[in-house]
Amino acid sequence: MKKSESIGKWKIILMFSATIVVTFLLGLLAASIVERRSEKNFVYKPKVQLTENEPRNEVWGLNYPLEYQSYIQTADTSFRSKHGGSATHDMLSENPSMVILWAGYAFSKDYKQGRGHYYAIDDIRNTLRTGAPMGPEEGPQPSTCWSCKSPDVPRMMAKEGVDNFYKGKWARLGAEVVNPIGCADCHDPESMSLRITRPALIEAYQRMGKDIKLATHQEMRSLVCAQCHVEYYFSSFNGKEKYLTFPWDNGFSVEAIEEYYDKLEFSDWTHQLSKAPMLKAQHPDFELYSMGVHGDRGVSCADCHMPYRSEGGQKFTDHHIQSPLNNVANSCQVCHREEAGKLISNVIERQDKISEARAILEQELVKAHIEAGMAWEKGAKEGDMKDILVDIRHAQWRWDYSAASHGASFHAPVETQRIIAKGLEKAVSARVKLVRLLARLGQVDEIKYPDISTKEKAQKYIGIDLKELNEQKAKFKEVVIPQWVKQSKSRESEWKVTYL
Amino acid sequence: MKKSESIGKWKIILMFSATIVVTFLLGLLAASIVERRSEKNFVYKPKVQLTENEPRNEVWGLNYPLEYQSYIQTADTSFRSKHGGSATHDMLSENPSMVILWAGYAFSKDYKQGRGHYYAIDDIRNTLRTGAPMGPEEGPQPSTCWSCKSPDVPRMMAKEGVDNFYKGKWARLGAEVVNPIGCADCHDPESMSLRITRPALIEAYQRMGKDIKLATHQEMRSLVCAQCHVEYYFSSFNGKEKYLTFPWDNGFSVEAIEEYYDKLEFSDWTHQLSKAPMLKAQHPDFELYSMGVHGDRGVSCADCHMPYRSEGGQKFTDHHIQSPLNNVANSCQVCHREEAGKLISNVIERQDKISEARAILEQELVKAHIEAGMAWEKGAKEGDMKDILVDIRHAQWRWDYSAASHGASFHAPVETQRIIAKGLEKAVSARVKLVRLLARLGQVDEIKYPDISTKEKAQKYIGIDLKELNEQKAKFKEVVIPQWVKQSKSRESEWKVTYL
Repeated sequence: MKKSESIGKWKIILMFSATIVVTFLLGLLAASIVERRSEKNFVYKPKVQLTENEPRNEVWGLNYPLEYQSYIQTADTSFRSKHGGSATHDMLSENPSMVILWAGYAFSKDYKQGRGHYYAIDDIRNTLRTGAPMGPEEGPQPSTCWSCKSPDVPRMMAKEGVDNFYKGKWARLGAEVVNPIGCADCHDPESMSLRITRPALIEAYQRMGKDIKLATHQEMRSLVCAQCHVEYYFSSFNGKEKYLTFPWDNGFSVEAIEEYYDKLEFSDWTHQLSKAPMLKAQHPDFELYSMGVHGDRGVSCADCHMPYRSEGGQKFTDHHIQSPLNNVANSCQVCHREEAGKLISNVIERQDKISEARAILEQELVKAHIEAGMAWEKGAKEGDMKDILVDIRHAQWRWDYSAASHGASFHAPVETQRIIAKGLEKAVSARVKLVRLLARLGQVDEIKYPDISTKEKAQKYIGIDLKELNEQKAKFKEVVIPQWVKQSKSRESEWKVTYL
Repeated sequence: MKKSESIGKWKIILMFSATIVVTFLLGLLAASIVERRSEKNFVYKPKVQLTENEPRNEVWGLNYPLEYQSYIQTADTSFRSKHGGSATHDMLSENPSMVILWAGYAFSKDYKQGRGHYYAIDDIRNTLRTGAPMGPEEGPQPSTCWSCKSPDVPRMMAKEGVDNFYKGKWARLGAEVVNPIGCADCHDPESMSLRITRPALIEAYQRMGKDIKLATHQEMRSLVCAQCHVEYYFSSFNGKEKYLTFPWDNGFSVEAIEEYYDKLEFSDWTHQLSKAPMLKAQHPDFELYSMGVHGDRGVSCADCHMPYRSEGGQKFTDHHIQSPLNNVANSCQVCHREEAGKLISNVIERQDKISEARAILEQELVKAHIEAGMAWEKGAKEGDMKDILVDIRHAQWRWDYSAASHGASFHAPVETQRIIAKGLEKAVSARVKLVRLLARLGQVDEIKYPDISTKEKAQKYIGIDLKELNEQKAKFKEVVIPQWVKQSKSRESEWKVTYL
């Protein structure tokens, strides 16, 4: 045997052995994959039968523990407190001008930064805006106010009919609507696919000539949020009362929605000082998001606020809905290769610059309301005031649209600034006319604006007795809330959970 | 011989042959690379010796034909005409309000969109702003106005001294400054590395405690542009006259520069109508670019306006300086994976939204100037007007800062909108005070604003006789320009080109 032939043989043996080792390792890998798969099947084996309108998030949690456990993290408010203020920081204390802007409207009494979905029921019970109804037919707010707060809403709509759900007072459903925003609001219990449970969105799509059933899964990852995170109003027509409606018929822009409201001569309230027929913007989040670059690129709400997460080898959607700034690695950095600190400071810079612009509009509006109030006092006529009040309405609508939308400064900074500038145009117009009118009424010098440097001073100026409101609320919480909880608990024993 | 051994031998022969073929092909490839290299060396072999201050771009072009040939493409203005208007479209016709805003200042006579660098000399000779000086000591503008127009500037500064260069009238250097912005403005003729030739930038850096010599190459790819694309003014101090100065001592923001000018009580002119001490913003391009996200990410001017290009196997910097919108594939799409049409429409949307906001500020300013003029007419005192004129100065400074900066709406949209909103704050303040003052002076009704709907009407309102100005200019172009050209040509024969 030649030397070369001997080497050749050894080479073959070596190769053969190496192949055996590699094949063995591949086998191990395959086994591991199969094991992971069966682990997944094991974890996701449904434990209970979910009924069509099961409102209890903890029952859904039995079948979907990873999603549920991440959802209950929305109880964590530490991020918000880290970034200044308490978890439910008091917007009126931070910015007392808002008390004047909303004079005559419930928001001037109490406006706190909302907490996570987990607190939806607690927060609506606690706010002074819902008053202190001691019986089911009392209180300032309609039953419609529950619409976005709970998966009990689709259940009650199915039971009462949509029209009837909206009728009556908020207190009427206090013992029924008890589970905070959760699973059934967005998911089909059979297939777990995303679904729209709120008629207002479906109907708004219909009026725009669109069928929401044709939405893609990626679109649905925003549309389920758009059931609530939108501009809306309570409409009364054809025997319907306080019917939750999205004013989208002309489009999403601040001008299109204003045109819609103007045509209806709709106003949320008449301003206490200026007597202007005001519009209150709710939170046009979906509208403004759609006008920004992330919306334009097809990035969904869930992509940033509920990014994918992995635990025990399983990928799932993180239901700890929160600011992406608290979770930059899984949200922003999926696309943007920048340090988290840099990305956060970019967002904060946008917010700061837009807040600076919005504060200017705010101050002009405060002055306009006060000047208009003074004009009335000095004997201004309806005819003198008409155009001025329209200007104030339109200016504040723009201010509120930019202020009320969560994350507007990030979602669509250029559009938000445009809205503020247009608001300033209307505010100047109002103020120039007011100063001229006041001069005609004998007031040539600058008027003395009241001291509204704190929430207390501002509320005192417009005659809000916070002590009385707080006492009434305390009584309501002491007497009524325990009744609601008791009634709801007693009824819950009727609910069956069918284990599989 | 066993069969397996025979197969083994064939295998070895086959492998051997394959190796020979592959090696041969690699050899061909290497030869091709070497050839390309020598082609490059051939092309880039310097043909002429460039002197320190060689101002003639075509002489540099002998050594650097690819760069030069791309540079002369700045003569192409088809992109601008494609996007509406002629190549030098008339900004005052497009927006006659500007005539009022600049009343009493040369810009109210003539303001056209600048063309490419290739036209720098033609355009400054043609604009009505430089007047019609028939002799070297005539005309409205100082010699400083040449500073950014030509590589003859560093040459003349070396010859006369920087202080002396700025002294005297613009017409003084008409026969010297003849080559349009080009090679020597930014490049060292020995090493071709980027260099700063304008003292104003070096001095501004020194006053900020920074040494521009420590700038990286990537920073230099913006700083050479920042020699001219900045806010500047002409300062007189310590025997220096009309000394080109960047007002950066307090920072780049609109507020920091305003503070700088206010402290000096500097004004570019006194407004013809309102008598306000006005500031004219030049083009704070570098400042606003620095405040936007591209600047923040270290993207240089050249990265988008002069992206790399390849010809004949050679990569070089495209000296066809232009809007990146005209060259999306080599600018935006290097980083952004989006269709060109989408990227362009994103930019245009930003521009449109910001123009909308800026137009509001513009209208308020027009009214403020006219109202202030009327207040003077009705007998207002200095003391009545002082605060109002400061408001007008500050408001228009913000308008101009946002309007004059090339590409501000793209470079830093959120900052630009913030600036406009702050401008609106000042404008409202001025107008509210003015309306009050006018009322005290007996003018309670809205005043009648003049018809300034066209450039002609607006210029007539402020008393500009465009016909006369055009006739003077025509005479200047007929008589003086040919003299300048002749003198410059006669002197050129003295210039030697040393071929290597």
